[in-house]
Amino acid sequence: MIIVMENGASEEQIDGVVKKIKEFGLESNVSRGTERTVIGAIGDERKLDQEMIDALPGVENSMHVVKPYKIVAREWHKENTVVNIKGIPLGGNQIQVIGGPCSVETPEQMELSAKYVKAAGCRLMRGGAFKPRTSPYTFQGKGVEGLDMFRKAADKYGLPIVTELMDVRMLDTFLEYDVDVIQIGTRNMQNFDLLKEVGRINKPVILKRGMSATISEWLMAAEYIAAGGNHNIIFCERGIRTFETYYRNVLDVTAVPVLKKETHLPVIIDPSHAGGKAWMVPALSRAAIAAGADGLLVEMHPNPCEAWCDADQALNPEELKNLMVELKGIAAVLGRSI
Amino acid sequence: MIIVMENGASEEQIDGVVKKIKEFGLESNVSRGTERTVIGAIGDERKLDQEMIDALPGVENSMHVVKPYKIVAREWHKENTVVNIKGIPLGGNQIQVIGGPCSVETPEQMELSAKYVKAAGCRLMRGGAFKPRTSPYTFQGKGVEGLDMFRKAADKYGLPIVTELMDVRMLDTFLEYDVDVIQIGTRNMQNFDLLKEVGRINKPVILKRGMSATISEWLMAAEYIAAGGNHNIIFCERGIRTFETYYRNVLDVTAVPVLKKETHLPVIIDPSHAGGKAWMVPALSRAAIAAGADGLLVEMHPNPCEAWCDADQALNPEELKNLMVELKGIAAVLGRSI
Amino acid sequence: MIIVMENGASEEQIDGVVKKIKEFGLESNVSRGTERTVIGAIGDERKLDQEMIDALPGVENSMHVVKPYKIVAREWHKENTVVNIKGIPLGGNQIQVIGGPCSVETPEQMELSAKYVKAAGCRLMRGGAFKPRTSPYTFQGKGVEGLDMFRKAADKYGLPIVTELMDVRMLDTFLEYDVDVIQIGTRNMQNFDLLKEVGRINKPVILKRGMSATISEWLMAAEYIAAGGNHNIIFCERGIRTFETYYRNVLDVTAVPVLKKETHLPVIIDPSHAGGKAWMVPALSRAAIAAGADGLLVEMHPNPCEAWCDADQALNPEELKNLMVELKGIAAVLGRSI
Amino acid sequence: MIIVMENGASEEQIDGVVKKIKEFGLESNVSRGTERTVIGAIGDERKLDQEMIDALPGVENSMHVVKPYKIVAREWHKENTVVNIKGIPLGGNQIQVIGGPCSVETPEQMELSAKYVKAAGCRLMRGGAFKPRTSPYTFQGKGVEGLDMFRKAADKYGLPIVTELMDVRMLDTFLEYDVDVIQIGTRNMQNFDLLKEVGRINKPVILKRGMSATISEWLMAAEYIAAGGNHNIIFCERGIRTFETYYRNVLDVTAVPVLKKETHLPVIIDPSHAGGKAWMVPALSRAAIAAGADGLLVEMHPNPCEAWCDADQALNPEELKNLMVELKGIAAVLGRSI
Repeated sequence: MIIVMENGASEEQIDGVVKKIKEFGLESNVSRGTERTVIGAIGDERKLDQEMIDALPGVENSMHVVKPYKIVAREWHKENTVVNIKGIPLGGNQIQVIGGPCSVETPEQMELSAKYVKAAGCRLMRGGAFKPRTSPYTFQGKGVEGLDMFRKAADKYGLPIVTELMDVRMLDTFLEYDVDVIQIGTRNMQNFDLLKEVGRINKPVILKRGMSATISEWLMAAEYIAAGGNHNIIFCERGIRTFETYYRNVLDVTAVPVLKKETHLPVIIDPSHAGGKAWMVPALSRAAIAAGADGLLVEMHPNPCEAWCDADQALNPEELKNLMVELKGIAAVLGRSI
Repeated sequence: MIIVMENGASEEQIDGVVKKIKEFGLESNVSRGTERTVIGAIGDERKLDQEMIDALPGVENSMHVVKPYKIVAREWHKENTVVNIKGIPLGGNQIQVIGGPCSVETPEQMELSAKYVKAAGCRLMRGGAFKPRTSPYTFQGKGVEGLDMFRKAADKYGLPIVTELMDVRMLDTFLEYDVDVIQIGTRNMQNFDLLKEVGRINKPVILKRGMSATISEWLMAAEYIAAGGNHNIIFCERGIRTFETYYRNVLDVTAVPVLKKETHLPVIIDPSHAGGKAWMVPALSRAAIAAGADGLLVEMHPNPCEAWCDADQALNPEELKNLMVELKGIAAVLGRSI
Repeated sequence: MIIVMENGASEEQIDGVVKKIKEFGLESNVSRGTERTVIGAIGDERKLDQEMIDALPGVENSMHVVKPYKIVAREWHKENTVVNIKGIPLGGNQIQVIGGPCSVETPEQMELSAKYVKAAGCRLMRGGAFKPRTSPYTFQGKGVEGLDMFRKAADKYGLPIVTELMDVRMLDTFLEYDVDVIQIGTRNMQNFDLLKEVGRINKPVILKRGMSATISEWLMAAEYIAAGGNHNIIFCERGIRTFETYYRNVLDVTAVPVLKKETHLPVIIDPSHAGGKAWMVPALSRAAIAAGADGLLVEMHPNPCEAWCDADQALNPEELKNLMVELKGIAAVLGRSI
Repeated sequence: MIIVMENGASEEQIDGVVKKIKEFGLESNVSRGTERTVIGAIGDERKLDQEMIDALPGVENSMHVVKPYKIVAREWHKENTVVNIKGIPLGGNQIQVIGGPCSVETPEQMELSAKYVKAAGCRLMRGGAFKPRTSPYTFQGKGVEGLDMFRKAADKYGLPIVTELMDVRMLDTFLEYDVDVIQIGTRNMQNFDLLKEVGRINKPVILKRGMSATISEWLMAAEYIAAGGNHNIIFCERGIRTFETYYRNVLDVTAVPVLKKETHLPVIIDPSHAGGKAWMVPALSRAAIAAGADGLLVEMHPNPCEAWCDADQALNPEELKNLMVELKGIAAVLGRSI
């Protein structure tokens, strides 16, 4: 850590910082510049608490030199991690498109959805049984009954399932239904107790980015899961919150190359929640794959106009099929397959 | 709800919208303008699902006419709600400054904190036993042991306590320790299962605004609590996330008059987390009270340089005392007391 | 325009709104709902001043039904506009990659740049003679001398030139040097006097998006140019400002399909300023083309480490060449050429 | 400047950085940590171009140690600067409230406005003759005719005038009409040629913050003016752009204590543009003064419902008068006068 002292900091204040660094077990290197004194803390700086240093008298600013994340960092694990989902690889050369409806509604809807997802060439299926909704007065998901419908429909077509876990008390039920990939939603990215719990199991986890989470906070949230022993983590960018009102969120496509540089774990994109409108989905999906994403989480509904929530952002089966063709072309340009 | 059709929408598309509105039990009013047809849905529009309407062919745009929140809305409850915290009123003429350290550390630190909080003229005390931390490798709070220390120190000085609940499984423990005000933190503002649980008890709840939550989402989060039966809700603005990097968050002081207009519930401000630096706290506290806030949540530590987290933003006892004097003056200008 | 009255608005207030609408020459349609009265203004609503309506007593909210932009809107001009730059088409099936250094530095650097730009297969060249710099103490561009160097180097290789105009008083000089495309930078997107001036000539104009401009404001800025008679406008997305600090800006790739829907004018992307780092440029460039952009504005420097500004974001000649190959592949998937 | 090298940077790369620092005339201090090598550049670091350093092979990150602004920095000029506006002090103990309409409309409106501004106890008057409007189809201001009306009305009541300059070519006209304070609007905060021109005269300049300008960029924009010789600069915070849609902008009240710490120049607030609604203005005005602002720029119109633009945010004369009474009380608490 580099600590910059205020202009005119006293020798006593400089000594105070050096002493505090020593208490944490690190060495100091004091460098007196023309306008500022700069102190370097040498050793394992993760032991240092930046806020405590910043609070010392005479300190103007400080900067971490080493990244605060470890297990998820590519720095310590150079090769790509390929997460194995019941035999389906995510994070390798093959790109995975995870399709399915926003919400589980009825057995018929799920059966049809699974059929179309399979027909489009997808190998994994998504669907929400527990729905985080802004209003307490709107449909909150079918719950456990929905998990059951989803499991049955997906099994018929041999599709591993991805579904969101909102409440830590539901984890056992998720394990009973053998949910193949547990999704942590954007509103729970920093629900640390939930992260710790999914860190204790070994099911793959899709960690969606918080609505206004920085890349660093997102990596640290994954570190919570990884620190528990579960390294099967998949990052999912789903649009960030900005000033723009024309679309729901701004898909942060830059996050793809940046995460691929910072972490060895797979990175996927949710183009449906990002734009919030079905007509934007093909363009955003193509952009995501072109930027290097390892997969997509795409909403498809057998009949979007009848969907119970977020109807506006679901593709119909035909649209998903056409999208897959385009994505195949782009994947090929990058030397990948879908 | 007002639905605007695309330029050139067909009669069939217009009929489709009218039919869907009827399915929800509302009436329609079709108005054909020079460039667009506009459809009004008349009746209880909270029954309508906006996304489903938006997904219908030919629809360009739609707008709610009625606010989506009910119980928390001032529209249906004109007088201010005064939340009673063991006899201390919050939301009335008297302003409440809730002081105390960021984290519970030791019995001595809590005892000293309680003494200074009381001496400064505060009637309520804050302190964190469970800490939401960005990194899994930093201090996570003293947990249940911390609750115990806090309860004892505060009881000695007759101060009701405010502390954060992060995990729904801890609620019973909070009730055992008779926590007087349960705080829902910024990262959990949309942890809907947690909101539902605190909605089932009758303890006052401080609901902090999410890092990038809109006023409307925040009111809807409170509606989750209120819908369960608990109407003892206190809104707490703590700074929002923006592009500015000089300070941690931007205190959104405009939220104060806006919430006072939209809801009958009390509104307080956390100037410590907003700015992130102790030297900003007095200016932000004065601004908050001048803008009409019903109270403050201020960090004070008997020895800020030794604090175990967020040291940088805590006032020392002397500073808190001086701040109280200034705030008294401003309260008086507004015809209020502290 | 739709005007929603407050709950409990008086008949007098409703009449006041109806009267004001009449003053602007429009008709009214008053619709009394269960909780709110809604007034529709029928006629050419662009004549109405929304702020004046909102200020009337009893008005809660209002919404435009018709888009405020006209000349640039696809609604009134269905086919794509292809801007002709000295015979090079921009906005048609062929994608244009505009390459070149951030700043004009020396005749040798410009000559080399032109050579490499041409060799990579680009048909247009960029370069800054007037540089908008945050600090008054850093290099501000070579000025008119730079225009001269640029013109000569580009002419040698038959490349039309793109360069930024910052000061309205320099327009004549730009015309003297026959600058082929005038760029309006992000900081000047709402420099309305500058927009009006470039609206009076017939040179193609690249209008960069303001750092935090909404799509609607951007379209309206273009409308300023178009209203003067110059319809040769090219939109350029260059990243927006958000809370993220890892990269300079967030490339808003969603703006591509949205603009292609809202306007008939070409849309290009500047991946260099968006990410701010050369290693991000290929991924962002591929994403932009995959999303449907009509071109790119890419920084290339013969020797990035020696560049006088923004060195960090420039590709070297080899990297530009390799990028062109990848982009060709993606263009082909979309049925386009480069 | 502190330069952090990548993990595994070679000796050759380290030497490259040291060599480049030397070229700029500074000394280096190389410090080899356990995971990273850190290089300190010692000397006048304003000579270093950060982007060029960042572009060197092996560099991961760099940080300025010294602030990039000089003339406006409090570090080099400890006492508050009091700007003298025809004998009225701004930045001293006395707080100045600058009142007046958004736009100059008619001689009668300006005469009435001046009368009410004076009657409320304000000593300076504002009004716009040139209006930056989002749409080219709405009222653009009365122009020079408006300047004339304003000058005459204000002179009658002995009020110095504040008005916005948008176009550099209008500066001579502003000087002819002896405009007392020139306002640079939010959209022109980084119109560097305009800043340079007002830096060459000695009229006081109000520099509004750009819609999404950081504190640092804002100080650097002021530095452009100051570098030309004009040190009569007044900062004006007017709300920043965020994700919130309930109000137009978020008043950044934290900017007040931060600017007072960073610069010796006066800081005022525009509560009218920040909130965008007249009913928010009193709360925001009180907050601004309580936070330590040196003044306000408040919209007041003799008849807000008839105003030609931004009617919705103007106070009426009675409201301005009442506001002044409240502000006097708050100023007194802080030991200031109004």
